[in-house]
Amino acid sequence: MLFTIFGATGDLTTKKLIPALYNLYFEEEMPENFKVINIGRRAYTSEAFVDEIREKMSGDYPRWEAFKKHLLYFQMDFSNSEAYPDFKKFVEDLPGQYRNRIFYLATAPRFFPIIAQALIQCKMIRRDDFREKIVFEKPFGEDLASAKAYNRLLLEAIDESQVFRIDHYLGKEMLQNILMVRFANKIFENIWNSESIESVKIYAMETESVKQRGGYYDHSGALKDMVQNHLFQTLSLVAMEPPGGLNDNLIKDEKVAVLDRVRVSDEVIYGQYAGYQNEKGIAPASTTETFVGLKLYIDTPRWKETPFYLVTGKMMSKKRAGIEITFKDATCFFEKGMPKKNKLFIEIFPREGLVLQFNGKAPGLAAYTMPMKLDYCHLCNVVGNSPEAYEKLISDVVHNDASLFTRWDEIESSWRIIDAMIEKKGLSKPVIYGSESEILSECEKRWKEPVFDEDMD
Amino acid sequence: MLFTIFGATGDLTTKKLIPALYNLYFEEEMPENFKVINIGRRAYTSEAFVDEIREKMSGDYPRWEAFKKHLLYFQMDFSNSEAYPDFKKFVEDLPGQYRNRIFYLATAPRFFPIIAQALIQCKMIRRDDFREKIVFEKPFGEDLASAKAYNRLLLEAIDESQVFRIDHYLGKEMLQNILMVRFANKIFENIWNSESIESVKIYAMETESVKQRGGYYDHSGALKDMVQNHLFQTLSLVAMEPPGGLNDNLIKDEKVAVLDRVRVSDEVIYGQYAGYQNEKGIAPASTTETFVGLKLYIDTPRWKETPFYLVTGKMMSKKRAGIEITFKDATCFFEKGMPKKNKLFIEIFPREGLVLQFNGKAPGLAAYTMPMKLDYCHLCNVVGNSPEAYEKLISDVVHNDASLFTRWDEIESSWRIIDAMIEKKGLSKPVIYGSESEILSECEKRWKEPVFDEDMD
Repeated sequence: MLFTIFGATGDLTTKKLIPALYNLYFEEEMPENFKVINIGRRAYTSEAFVDEIREKMSGDYPRWEAFKKHLLYFQMDFSNSEAYPDFKKFVEDLPGQYRNRIFYLATAPRFFPIIAQALIQCKMIRRDDFREKIVFEKPFGEDLASAKAYNRLLLEAIDESQVFRIDHYLGKEMLQNILMVRFANKIFENIWNSESIESVKIYAMETESVKQRGGYYDHSGALKDMVQNHLFQTLSLVAMEPPGGLNDNLIKDEKVAVLDRVRVSDEVIYGQYAGYQNEKGIAPASTTETFVGLKLYIDTPRWKETPFYLVTGKMMSKKRAGIEITFKDATCFFEKGMPKKNKLFIEIFPREGLVLQFNGKAPGLAAYTMPMKLDYCHLCNVVGNSPEAYEKLISDVVHNDASLFTRWDEIESSWRIIDAMIEKKGLSKPVIYGSESEILSECEKRWKEPVFDEDMD
Repeated sequence: MLFTIFGATGDLTTKKLIPALYNLYFEEEMPENFKVINIGRRAYTSEAFVDEIREKMSGDYPRWEAFKKHLLYFQMDFSNSEAYPDFKKFVEDLPGQYRNRIFYLATAPRFFPIIAQALIQCKMIRRDDFREKIVFEKPFGEDLASAKAYNRLLLEAIDESQVFRIDHYLGKEMLQNILMVRFANKIFENIWNSESIESVKIYAMETESVKQRGGYYDHSGALKDMVQNHLFQTLSLVAMEPPGGLNDNLIKDEKVAVLDRVRVSDEVIYGQYAGYQNEKGIAPASTTETFVGLKLYIDTPRWKETPFYLVTGKMMSKKRAGIEITFKDATCFFEKGMPKKNKLFIEIFPREGLVLQFNGKAPGLAAYTMPMKLDYCHLCNVVGNSPEAYEKLISDVVHNDASLFTRWDEIESSWRIIDAMIEKKGLSKPVIYGSESEILSECEKRWKEPVFDEDMD
């Protein structure tokens, strides 16, 4: 297997891709014969590159010496299509056979179409060989029109099955767990609807600023950077109808059907953290949102009037991601005590787990109810590590399993929603926030609903 | 308050009643002015009696010296009605006022009617004073006819509200919790029925033999000793319809309604532990059952064909009690992995807690399902001790709260079922078992169903 990383000098390579490849190697999940070709514009020998990577990687890698022999560096300007014949020659001259060829695009998104086109032109990826695959980081396109153009470019030359559109959220254990929790459990089968569920909140909070990514981020914003992909993917898994079967395409059909029934409410809050406009690479009076609080409905019989809240932002107080499903009050409520609504928390980060909040008897002589927590920690009882999202996703590319990758129509449907939101938003100014609590209280004012359960915060 | 214990030299007094009274005293739940009169046939001074009690009590009782001043001993033959005027005089001569008078019958059941009648005759308990109360240990009667006669005797002279029929199971935290779990939680509201629940198992396993109680036990057996009271009470809480409101009488109405719809199947297994017939006080060729495995149905729309299994026995391998609710398979099942049916375990002993078994993703690269456990420990997060059942029940008698005591019609309905079972059983010989696994495998053969979940055993 030949695994080529475009943009190998970037953070993603050091932080995610190389560690994931190492782990697969360590766990003997890699084919015996493999090479990782790291492509960047800077001049490095393979050895210098590998040493620099290792220096930046934290943690213990006991089989690093054996692993690093599989790593190569190739210098090229990947935005210049004339550089590709040399790269092709380099690959062809490698000793050994590498039939499974994966091109992983870890560059800035604007280079995606350029690289794809160049690979197609020089016939390094061809429709007639399904073992030649191309992997894209999100975002796929910048809006519906560009995504369509970009997709057309690909599908004119190669097959959908050769295209892997990554949304690394889908590689996370708890995202994969959503369908199992929903569909492998009788107890949730009849209560996963508006009859029983009062609201659903999906959140992904980041503590970081835009850091060095200002140039990219200012053209994107939270809607395109987080909502269009991670949050909509999570939403569609939580809200989809039971699929006709458990195969990948039937599941994706239902995910698309959810996105197509999304009705965004007028109660959308855009925020921008104070100081954003002074960051490197940001336009002077930028109205780009670094926070979105989105209330939407899904117009299906199952969801009737259940509101879904999607919340994401930069410069929040704590990095965390999860899903909070709030059930309605029980019909027959106990008067004594402090019963709370049932909630199911699907925790994605930092802990992976499930918490089911229910009401039981408060211990003691009095017959008081008290909210209690049934707790399940996804990893606490596991020997060894659970795979990181990228490890799972790379392994799936190798094995041609597209389940956790985004199908074109999912991209299409999600861009359609985002485009409409952006059009409506126009150049209106976001709320400037100095802290998480400031912007969340804006949401609470608008929604008349606390954003987070105080107990889980 | 005057708290009189008939049969104070017995185990119940030492193990349960005095510790419970002490705890209530320690927690300042007792009225300032109280005396505990311990009645037995043996000669003791109050001091000698109290010292002997203390010696038998394990544990630390930091305020024992202050508490023991409230304990008195009175010697009498409580089976002789002529002894009561002296007892009455003893009480009247006590210094101080004690308006709240509780007579607690902790004797062998055969003395219950005798003592009750004597107390009524000598007017120590009178219909016109609701602060005079009588408390009976179970069993209330030996069959429907005797229970009726016994009840008539009481209710001709005093009011139902003065009669407290104890089933100490109802004082247990997790028994009290059943109604809250069922009715204060939306998530359980729509799945508590035959649509979702495949079977219900209620079990109470004891490791002990009949010990010194052979004389009583041989006339009783497991049906009368355990099923008629503890297991039927648990059953009615698990299976009852939602009450019209949360008041005590509306709840009991629904509990009785369940018992009245019980249909005992033909698949009843009676067992007797090997060696039982050689125990002290047992008739030579006794056919008394020390184990019952009972399969029954409840003929209501809610429960259609859901089987309920009630299992109890002596000389089992481990002392434990609980409820295991097994849900049906999910409609849409995952093929990879080892999904199991959802189960809700309500743990009564030794741990008090809830465990919800569900299916989730097995951590790792493969998309396998795996049964997981959501766990809630009732006491783990509690500061101090949860009240013992007797503490709760005595406190309720003091405060005239009859919720956790058995109403007459509950007794009546449960005896009706037991009487019919005993008639059908006749003198047929029980299965002799040398171990728990031996008799449980008899049940499994008959029911074609494992008695216990292997994971929880």
